[in-house]
Parts: sequence; C-alpha cells; structure tokens
Amino acid sequence: MRPVHLGVVGLGRMGRYHASNIAGRLPGLRLAGVADTDAQLAREVAAELETGAHTSLESLLAVPDLEAVVIASPTPYHVSMIEETAAAGKHVFCEKPIALDVAATQRAVAAADAAGVKLQIGFHRRFDPDWAEAKRRIAQGDLGDVLLFRTSLRDKQVPPLEFLTTSGGLFQDVTVHDLDTARWLVGEVTEVSSVGAAIADPRIADLDDVDHAIVTLRFASGAIGVIDNSRAAGYGYECSTEVVGSRAAIRIGNHRRAHCEWLTPGASSVDWVVDFRERYPHAYMAELEAFAACISSDTATEPSGADGLAALVLAQACEESLRMKHVVRVVAPNGG
Amino acid sequence: MRPVHLGVVGLGRMGRYHASNIAGRLPGLRLAGVADTDAQLAREVAAELETGAHTSLESLLAVPDLEAVVIASPTPYHVSMIEETAAAGKHVFCEKPIALDVAATQRAVAAADAAGVKLQIGFHRRFDPDWAEAKRRIAQGDLGDVLLFRTSLRDKQVPPLEFLTTSGGLFQDVTVHDLDTARWLVGEVTEVSSVGAAIADPRIADLDDVDHAIVTLRFASGAIGVIDNSRAAGYGYECSTEVVGSRAAIRIGNHRRAHCEWLTPGASSVDWVVDFRERYPHAYMAELEAFAACISSDTATEPSGADGLAALVLAQACEESLRMKHVVRVVAPNGG
Amino acid sequence: MRPVHLGVVGLGRMGRYHASNIAGRLPGLRLAGVADTDAQLAREVAAELETGAHTSLESLLAVPDLEAVVIASPTPYHVSMIEETAAAGKHVFCEKPIALDVAATQRAVAAADAAGVKLQIGFHRRFDPDWAEAKRRIAQGDLGDVLLFRTSLRDKQVPPLEFLTTSGGLFQDVTVHDLDTARWLVGEVTEVSSVGAAIADPRIADLDDVDHAIVTLRFASGAIGVIDNSRAAGYGYECSTEVVGSRAAIRIGNHRRAHCEWLTPGASSVDWVVDFRERYPHAYMAELEAFAACISSDTATEPSGADGLAALVLAQACEESLRMKHVVRVVAPNGG
Amino acid sequence: MRPVHLGVVGLGRMGRYHASNIAGRLPGLRLAGVADTDAQLAREVAAELETGAHTSLESLLAVPDLEAVVIASPTPYHVSMIEETAAAGKHVFCEKPIALDVAATQRAVAAADAAGVKLQIGFHRRFDPDWAEAKRRIAQGDLGDVLLFRTSLRDKQVPPLEFLTTSGGLFQDVTVHDLDTARWLVGEVTEVSSVGAAIADPRIADLDDVDHAIVTLRFASGAIGVIDNSRAAGYGYECSTEVVGSRAAIRIGNHRRAHCEWLTPGASSVDWVVDFRERYPHAYMAELEAFAACISSDTATEPSGADGLAALVLAQACEESLRMKHVVRVVAPNGG
Repeated sequence: MRPVHLGVVGLGRMGRYHASNIAGRLPGLRLAGVADTDAQLAREVAAELETGAHTSLESLLAVPDLEAVVIASPTPYHVSMIEETAAAGKHVFCEKPIALDVAATQRAVAAADAAGVKLQIGFHRRFDPDWAEAKRRIAQGDLGDVLLFRTSLRDKQVPPLEFLTTSGGLFQDVTVHDLDTARWLVGEVTEVSSVGAAIADPRIADLDDVDHAIVTLRFASGAIGVIDNSRAAGYGYECSTEVVGSRAAIRIGNHRRAHCEWLTPGASSVDWVVDFRERYPHAYMAELEAFAACISSDTATEPSGADGLAALVLAQACEESLRMKHVVRVVAPNGG
Repeated sequence: MRPVHLGVVGLGRMGRYHASNIAGRLPGLRLAGVADTDAQLAREVAAELETGAHTSLESLLAVPDLEAVVIASPTPYHVSMIEETAAAGKHVFCEKPIALDVAATQRAVAAADAAGVKLQIGFHRRFDPDWAEAKRRIAQGDLGDVLLFRTSLRDKQVPPLEFLTTSGGLFQDVTVHDLDTARWLVGEVTEVSSVGAAIADPRIADLDDVDHAIVTLRFASGAIGVIDNSRAAGYGYECSTEVVGSRAAIRIGNHRRAHCEWLTPGASSVDWVVDFRERYPHAYMAELEAFAACISSDTATEPSGADGLAALVLAQACEESLRMKHVVRVVAPNGG
Repeated sequence: MRPVHLGVVGLGRMGRYHASNIAGRLPGLRLAGVADTDAQLAREVAAELETGAHTSLESLLAVPDLEAVVIASPTPYHVSMIEETAAAGKHVFCEKPIALDVAATQRAVAAADAAGVKLQIGFHRRFDPDWAEAKRRIAQGDLGDVLLFRTSLRDKQVPPLEFLTTSGGLFQDVTVHDLDTARWLVGEVTEVSSVGAAIADPRIADLDDVDHAIVTLRFASGAIGVIDNSRAAGYGYECSTEVVGSRAAIRIGNHRRAHCEWLTPGASSVDWVVDFRERYPHAYMAELEAFAACISSDTATEPSGADGLAALVLAQACEESLRMKHVVRVVAPNGG
Repeated sequence: MRPVHLGVVGLGRMGRYHASNIAGRLPGLRLAGVADTDAQLAREVAAELETGAHTSLESLLAVPDLEAVVIASPTPYHVSMIEETAAAGKHVFCEKPIALDVAATQRAVAAADAAGVKLQIGFHRRFDPDWAEAKRRIAQGDLGDVLLFRTSLRDKQVPPLEFLTTSGGLFQDVTVHDLDTARWLVGEVTEVSSVGAAIADPRIADLDDVDHAIVTLRFASGAIGVIDNSRAAGYGYECSTEVVGSRAAIRIGNHRRAHCEWLTPGASSVDWVVDFRERYPHAYMAELEAFAACISSDTATEPSGADGLAALVLAQACEESLRMKHVVRVVAPNGG
C-alpha cells in the first residue's frame, strides 16, 4: 500500500506527539510537514523529525503530495482550519472538540461534506484494543441485550488555570469522550441528567465549572448508563468501562503499567498507569493508521464529524441538567 | 465471655441461614430456639439444629435464658414483632427493611428505645472484611478528602413475582443496601436523583417497578456519588465499591470464588462468585457476633434502627426522583 | 447424619486449632474431650470449649461415645499413640509426619490395619478448594496428558531452633507436603534429585540442615516436576501450584487476603496472606469433616497411612540426593 | 542524536522482524540495506521497506554509511559472518546462539575483540520493561539478599522437525535464555543439574533430545535457582520469573493480552499472550535501540559476546547433567 502523506498543524503536546508517531512509528504514513505560528518551535520539531517547517496552515497546504492535515491547534482555530483545509481539497483529522458551540460545529462538518473530504475526530478510545474488543463483542451479540453501561474517566490533577478557562468546562472537555464511548458502544442517548461539584480546587468554582461530575444516560434502546468524572483523583489516571448484558458482561480497566508484582510482607503491589499517554500508546497510533486507511481505500471515517457534533450536543445537555437539576431530553442534531 | 442466647423467628432462607450459623459456626452464640408459623418447618429446623421448636414469637420469648431475637420473618411482620420483643425486654436483630413506610419504621425504633433494648438492622455489608477495611482507611484519613463514591449491586436473576409484589420496589429492596453503605462510608446524603428502567422482565413494568436503576448522591461533605443496580445482570452477582479521595482510593470487587486459574490457549479464567451467600459468608456471621458483643458489653449497636430509617428515607427519595425526573432534596428524619 | 465424636490429644498450636474447629465450627462433629500431659493447659482448653479435660491418651480413650482421636502431639509420640488408639478400636487422624523413619511408620500403618480402624494423615492441602478443583480437572481429563508439575512452599521466617532440631529436616518437615501433592495430582514418583542451601540462618547449617531446597521429580507417567521450598522468604507465606497439560493448565496461587485494592499514585496494592492458617481455614476444617464422613459411611480415608509412608520415602530420597549429588531412584515401599 | 545505520543479513522470521522495526518503528535507527542468499526474498523485503537489496553479506558491508550489521541468519553461519563483519570494521548484533560449540564461540568473540567492534547478543529479555525493573530493584538492594530464583519458559507447540535437527537441543535453544536471565539477575552459576523428558512428541525422542526439562542452579552467591522449560505447554506461551530475597520478592508473569475482562455466569476470563512476539514487542525494539546507543556513545554492549559464551557453557553443562544423572560443576570459560 502506498504511504499516505500527512501534515500536522499546531505543535503543542498532542501535535508533537502525532507528528512524532507519523514520522517514526507508523510505517504506512509519511510526515509531509509541520506548521505552527511559533516559527522557532516549527523549525525545531521539523529538524528533529526530518520534515519541512511552516508557520501557517496555508503554507503547509501547498506542500506537494500532501493528502491530509492533522489539526492539533487550540480549539478556537479548529473550525476555520477545517474550512481552509477542506477548501484546499485535503482530508482532515481534527482533535476534539471541533468547537464549543453547535452552530460552528455544524458549519465545519458541512464544509468537509461540501468539499467531499474526509473528517475524523480524535476520540482515540475507539481505537484502543480493549474498547475495540468490547465493541466487537457487543456488535456480534455476545452480551445479549445491553442493559447497563458504566464508565469512569478520572485525571490525577487539575490542569492549569489558563487551560481551564478555554476548555469549555468539564462536560465539553472530559465527559465528551465518555459520551462518545457511550454512543459508540450502546447507541443513541435520549435523556441525560447530571450532578457536579467543585470540591477539589476553589479556582474551578470561581470559573463556575465543576471538577467532579456524574452523568446518567437513557439510551434509545431502553438501556441506562452512567459516567463519572474527576479532575483530581489523587491516586492517578483511570479510564475504565463496563457493559452489562443479559447474557454476559465486559469490563475494561485494571491498567497496570507492567506485569511485575512487588511482594513485601503482607502486600502485593503493581505499578499503575498514571496518565493518558501511558494508557493509550496504541490508540493514538491506531487512530491515525485508520484515518490513513480510509483515505487509501476511500471509505468513511469513524468517528466522523457527525459523531463529534452528537457528543457536543450531549455535553451541553449535561450542562443544562446540572444547572436546572432535572432530566434533559436530547434531540438529535441535524449535522451528519 | 459467657455465650449469648439467641432465638430466630421466621424460618425462610435467611432465618434458617442465621439459625444454622448460630447453632454450628459461632462459638460465642447459642441457639435458644426457632419459631415459625409453619409447625412442620419449625420442628424440622429445630431437630436438625438440636434446639426447641416454636410456632409463635410469644412462645419463643418465653424460653428461659433467651436474650435476643433475630427477626427474619416477611417484612409486614417486622414492626409488630419488634414491638412485641422489645416489650418482653429482649434485644432485636431485624433483617432489613424494618418497614416500607416511615411512620411504622419510626414506631418500631421508638419501641426499642422506650424498652431500652438494642436494635440492630441486617445491613450485613458493614461487617464484610473488605468494606470494613475501606471504612477503617477512610476514618483514619488515608484517602485524604473523599471526593467520589461509586458502588454497584447487581443480581443475576429477577426474583419470583410473589416476592417482587411485596418487596417495596427496587429502591427499597436493593438500593437501600447501597444507600446504607454510602452513609456509613462517606456521611449524610443531602440530595438524590435517579433514573430507572424496566427492560429485563415485562412483569416488572406491570408492577410499575424498575429492574435497573442509577442513583446519584450529593453528600453533606460536598462529595458526590453514584449507585447502579440491576436485577438481571446475566453474568452473575456483583457487589463492588470504589471510594476516591484526594490522596488515594480504595476499590472493592473482583470476587473470585477461588485462587485457581484455568489456562487454555489464549485465555485465562477464574471462577466467579454467583450469589450473595457466596460473597458474604463472613459478613453474615460477623454481624451476629457483633450484635452479641453489643449485648455482652452493653454498647450501642451499629447499624442501628436510626440507620435503617435513614436508608428508607433515601430510598423513598430515589423513588420520587425517578417519577418526577428532578433532583430531590433529602431532609433528615427525626427517628434516631 | 449422626454427629461423630472426636477427641484431641496434644494441645499445641495445631491441636488447639483442631479442637476449636470441632467444638465451634463443624456442625457434624462433636468434641468428646481433650488431652495433654500439661494438666493446666488441658483444663483451660477444656473449659473454653466446654468439654472434658484429660492428662493421658488412655483417659481420653475411655470417654463413652468417643469414636476417633486426632493426634496432634509432637512427632516422637505419634507411633505409640496410633498403636494405643488402634488397640482401643478407635479411628485415628494423625498430623504429619507419622514418624521420621520408615520402619516405625510401617509399624503404625500396620497397627491401624490390624485393628481395622481408619487412619488419615494431616496433608490438609488435599482439602483446600483450589487444589481439590485442580485434582478434579486433572482426573476428568481436562488438561489432556499432564506434562509438567510445579509447586512452591515458602515460609516467611525460620522456626525456633528447638523445633528445627526435632523437625527431621526441611525435606521431612516441609517438602513432604509437596511430595504428597505431587503424588496425589500426578501419580507415583520414580526418581528425585535435589539441591539445597543453608543461606538464611547459620544455625541451620550447624544442624546440617538446609533452609532452601529445590527438588526435581520424574513421575511413573513420564511427566517431570519441580518443588521449591524456602524457610525464609522475606515477603511472606507462599503456597502455589501449577500443572501443565497437553491441552490446558491450572495454576493455584495469588492468595490475596481480601478483595480490597488500595490505590496510590502509581501503584495498586492488595493485602497478601502471610501464614498458613490464613491460607487454609477451609482445608483444616474440611479434612476433619472428610474424616468424620469416612467414619460415618465406613469408607476409606484419604490421604491414608500408606500415603504418609510414601511421602516419607520420597523425602528421604531427597535427602540422599542432596548429599550424594546425583539422581535417586525411588522404590515404592511395602506399607499400604 | 545522529541516526545509526544498520543492515540486516538473513531474512527469516526474526531478520524480517528486526528490519521492519529498524525501518518503521525506531526513530533513531536507519535501515541501510537487507541481505539474503534468496535474491527474490531480499528484493521483496527491500522494496517493502524502501531500502537496498543484497544477496551477500559482502555486498551489504560495502554500503556507504553502514555502521553495523544485525545477523539473523541460521546458526551455522553466525561465526563466519561475525568474523567477516568485524574484519570490515562494522559492529555486530548477533541472534543467539553465536554457535553450538565453545571453541567456535570463543573464536567469534575474539574476532570482534581484535577488530575493536562491538558485539551484542540477542538475549532480548534483558530489555523487557518487566525484567529490567526486576534487575533495577535487585541491584539497588530492595530485595535484601537474593535467596531463590525461579523462571519458566514454555512454548505452545513443538517447532518443525527441520528446525529441531539444527537447534542444538532444548538446552542450547530454549534454556539458554533462562540461563542468561539467571546470570544477569543473580550472578554467576557454579553448579547445574537437570532432568528432562521427551513426552510430547516421539520425533524428539528419536533425535535424542527432550521436550521438557527442569534445571537447578547453584549460584556463586550461595543462592539456588530453578528453570522449567516446555516445548508443548498446551495453553500457550509462558515466560515468567520470580526472585525471592530476604526482604521482598519480585514476580513477573500474568501476561494478559488486554485489560478486558469477559464475564459470564460463574467465570471471568482474560485474553492471554500466546507467542513470544506478542510478549516482547518492546524488548525486540529496545535491544536494537540499546545497541545503537552503545555505538553512538562508544560504550560497552550488554549482553556481550562473553555473556553468550557463558550461557553456552551452562547449557552444555545441563546436557551433561541430564545424561550423567549427577550435579555438574561449572568452570567459567575464558572468553570475555
């Protein structure tokens, strides 16, 4: 299979991580260039990865052979960059969220559709081997009817204040991943309700945000589900999921960092994953490989822009439920 | 320490189980007699356990040396039996729930108080070594501030219809255990909200009951929590709890039946606990030993009648939230 | 089923443990009396367990209704006590080893045979649910042909010197349990070889004993196996077994004390069993229940006196191999 | 850091695997060419990996910029290829074993020494994160004195007959990895003894080889150890290690393929690693990265040619012990 040539725009933590994977670890992908408005940063990353440096998306889009762009810039730039890339006829892989409001998200999705280019959203969990196995088992009916869904996503530490102010809040920043997982594994969600608390850090209350939340879901199928989130689970990072069916259940969790057990008098201990990069080395690579494969074979990407939009609508419903203290009925957006 | 002499009234499954533990497995306890309105059943159980048979509580209460009664009769008889036993000056261990309404529960608690006898409720989970360890660690501050509580209680199969019609519904029958665990580990609950569904068995919908539910909790401390329940988790019985604090977390679960691992090409499997009696052999014994110790040392029982009342009030708030689709604020009852 | 009446002679740690189980925790067994040459100790134990105190086996054997005796006295007394009990027509449960030499062991086995009484040896591991499951799976052919056997038995601390001087050495004191497990699960052993070292405690070298050993086994079936033993595994007690077959394998181990997981930044830990009483509460009860059931139903005990003899012969072959540094061929004793 | 340019000679399974890692997954390494006497195979692999194809080592050695060669040809070619590569002044990474006899191995080691090039042997386990953690903990004294070492290496299926005839036998082909691990973690071995059996496949007995073996070790430190090996463990691949010290122990094993638990009534199962490539994806990459780092920084490789020689001497001692049925004392070779 001919390698697929990708550029990366936005060289923050995730952008550099994607660029490095494309350059050095993914045999079927080629890094066609990197772009950042910080010219010094762009030059350094380009030198290390032996590719070309750009200070604008426009310049990156002009690279011959470029087929697609990975957008890892701050969220406020996503929509215009999707539009610009689509207008240039190049495919788009965009980190979540597309945008923090529904109208802008719909505009970006429409732009990709109109240009006939592919748009994939960075819900990486869909590409982790554990969740992929759950999806496979559910899809082939091994669980029987799905009755109950449960997932936890917890971070060890509250992120820096400057990030929090632009994050869109806990539901749009964190819960959105779980909402996508819920839809992907169990199907459409018709009702949400939520509770939340700002108990870990007073700055979060000042922002009118929460650092802990629990969201309950009712699915179109009749099943119910629950998500819990923490920004400050002292013991570390956790991402675990359970799906209970009428015949069997599947449980993902227990993320040991190694298979080494340390035995001292009266206790056995194992090392534990402490952040999301340790947990998902495969998923972050697999999502780009899947994106490249969709380009090569001209098939539909997944999760699509419509999936990004649907998760956003659910996250906003969580926000509403938190404020109104009642169940919120969700109407599917017209965005797919 | 002098053995404590207990009688058992109500020889259904739990009554026989308690009677058998008292007779054969608990060195500090003596079985002073068993009572059931089914005379044949009472005779059989008494013969097997080498104790006296009675067909009424009145007759059992007349046994010389009897110090306390374990009430394991159907729920509708609990309140009158507590009143009768208390009036006779004997201590009471009563299976949960005391009653399905608050006024009757308050009456029973008041009767025990007025007679100066002890009243302990059968929330056995408080006596399981795993949950007791969680309690100990939380109490001594090892977790830091408690931020998030999560617990699951799931049964493999919907119980018989005749039981369901008198069970008081999922919240009063099942969730009540989790509500007690939540209060015990994290403290008083000030708000609840709930979702539920009757998806496993159409007869449950006919009873206007649910077979799956998720309950979110807000604690007086500011922490939040969640309970999930199923009456029909196909894979088996599950009772697991997580408490996440600012410094550390504790997780109870993974209830293997053995330490035997079966290895076949590509898979490793272990036997799994399938019902609550397999999960709690120690807890059912330990709660009676603790009750006897309270009698011997004249100390306060725990969980008390007031704990039973508090859990009932919360279960009824869950019911209200399910029907009204909004958060319900809980006012502490005057019953302790 | 009519209860079986047992007496216990020798009120050291194991004798008291057995007596307490018989008195308080085993519904089908009755404690008919306890005996020890230390009259004060006998009186105290008898008072606590509400049975009769004796200062000689002779006196205990005269108790009406007594059907069998559990011999838990020091090893040098085992043979004469088996002979005395057998001569009185009472069944015998004897802690291992019967004796430290083959001729005496054969004499004891012959005495029980001649008197027509049952003789069971305290290889309790055969009654643990985990090993019993392994036995069941092997016996019904689930593993295919057994190819490889492996077992570890490790103690945390070197026992007191006074015990070591009469223990018969590591092979007869510790390895003998593993040799019995090997024979029971895989069949007769035809060759042994061993290495050992006195590295944990210089007093053990002074006794010309070892504190660590590895024993390799060749079975009559053609399979091979290995045992490792330690008297000073700093992390605690370990008893684990693997049996590998041509189709599947079974692994016993991972002896958590609880199902509570303690999560701190970067590590997950569980409590670990630290001594054999924590590991085998069920086995020590089940072996006595099985013994009583053999008496009630007049069936053959297992492990029998012949099993005790066979394990002794193997332990002595390990000793010989250690000293001679070559493989030792084992000839089955004539003792069954 | 400047990338290191490596060629690969011998394009069997391991050669292609190394070449693919160098080309696509290791950012600091460059694939300078591939060579195989099968010209068609060389062309295909070279085309896929976008490098040059060669049909001889001589031709590969002439590639400009080439700094080192990975030798993955069949064992009989190793020594002459090491000599040829060393003579050309290029560094050598050679799959184990260097050769099946001591004199030839010494010759190869001497050739690399004389030419002043580095020689690293493919004992990949030293580079797995689990074993590396064990090494680190032992080295810093966390275990206290090491008392007991135990390791298992088991394959699911007997390899093809044509491989077996040239493998050098179980000890030189399989056990040699464990012997290297033993030396690396615990230190020099002074005595070995072994038992073995050909019970899984009659063709192995025909070759006068064994398919199962147990090897006991005495270390210079006084500690003892044991290795078990199987060529036909029906349940799959196993590589696990325990090191027991006076203060703590470390255990490596439990090689789940995922963190997905599948729950059905009465059983919980996880997917299990079934072959060595699944178990060691990181180790096979890390050993080449470490080799490249030694070249870049001009430091000593590990495991060295002397380590390869030492493991060979031990494997041959195992062979002798099996045949002679006695302990074999090992004299350290003069090869480092």
